[in-house]
Amino acid sequence: MTDTGHVGPRTRPGGRSARVRSAVLRATLEELAAVGYASFGIEGVAKRAGVHKTTVYRRWRNSENLLLEAMLEHWRAHVPIPDTGALRSDLLAYGKAVVAGLRDPEIEAVTRAVASIGDPESPLTTAGHAFWAARLDLASQIVDRAVARKEVSPGVEPRIVIEAVIGPVYFRLLLSSEKLDRRFLEQLADVGVAAAQAASPS
Amino acid sequence: MTDTGHVGPRTRPGGRSARVRSAVLRATLEELAAVGYASFGIEGVAKRAGVHKTTVYRRWRNSENLLLEAMLEHWRAHVPIPDTGALRSDLLAYGKAVVAGLRDPEIEAVTRAVASIGDPESPLTTAGHAFWAARLDLASQIVDRAVARKEVSPGVEPRIVIEAVIGPVYFRLLLSSEKLDRRFLEQLADVGVAAAQAASPS
Repeated sequence: MTDTGHVGPRTRPGGRSARVRSAVLRATLEELAAVGYASFGIEGVAKRAGVHKTTVYRRWRNSENLLLEAMLEHWRAHVPIPDTGALRSDLLAYGKAVVAGLRDPEIEAVTRAVASIGDPESPLTTAGHAFWAARLDLASQIVDRAVARKEVSPGVEPRIVIEAVIGPVYFRLLLSSEKLDRRFLEQLADVGVAAAQAASPS
Repeated sequence: MTDTGHVGPRTRPGGRSARVRSAVLRATLEELAAVGYASFGIEGVAKRAGVHKTTVYRRWRNSENLLLEAMLEHWRAHVPIPDTGALRSDLLAYGKAVVAGLRDPEIEAVTRAVASIGDPESPLTTAGHAFWAARLDLASQIVDRAVARKEVSPGVEPRIVIEAVIGPVYFRLLLSSEKLDRRFLEQLADVGVAAAQAASPS
């Protein structure tokens, strides 16, 4: 009974607001994983979070904003962008973090849900698009740091290096169901380094 | 009226059997695209193909076999494995063929359907696994031929080169909704060549 039903005093509006935000964002991915995107909606999220739906509408306005913020928050907590001091070990650590993240049922569920939607106007598709733009920007720091260390030339485009590493991870997860093992992640780190170095004058 | 309702003479059993096979395989992906995997079944396929369901069960036994054969047949017709005489142009042509194939509504639908299923025991997941094993074997010829031409060393593992090219294509299609344009395919061909050459003694 000590770690459930804990509700702080209503007299701290900042604390309460942060708790509501956190509860709603957590409930968003839980709801998506539980009911699927076809049945997903702000009312279900509000009910799961124990807040009134107008609270959610007021803060996020629509499900695209809600999904995007929930995804960014959840990945920030679960899929770190590594900084090991070298390109190859960064790419390896990043690949591992992505694979480890995919063992989280909510990350897997939202990933499959995004992949299932063919409609480019769907709130989940547009949230996924914005989410990946932001995440790839973050992960691009791995390549930017390698450029700053003069490991690779400034001519390299960070995005393609990151996509060369994580694209095959998602291909295996979503399509081929091949193993996402250590050996595969080592090979992908090599691919990423080769891709980055090929863009450098040699 | 001339190109519909054409049914050959029943007195050619070989011809009829081939027509039934072709009609059922075509109906399989049409049915999947039309009703989605949750409602997909052999009865619906048989109805759409205009054959009795026992005909389908007798020949394919279950939906996994049916889906696998339908996918292999459809891709064979729509996504050629190129042979241009050089690794980079082969990888570029292959990337283009994959992207062009994804404009086919049935290829996109079955791809998203496979990606949507998290259950590793699902007939669609196991069909997708076998399908991709077969397709990656075919595409690996691109790298095998580059080895035979001594463009790259025999030490290279063909699968990882092919996955480095198509993984990011599916990542953009299914998750980030970024453009699958010519420039991206050129970058991926460069990534594939760099990956293949990195495995070569330099």
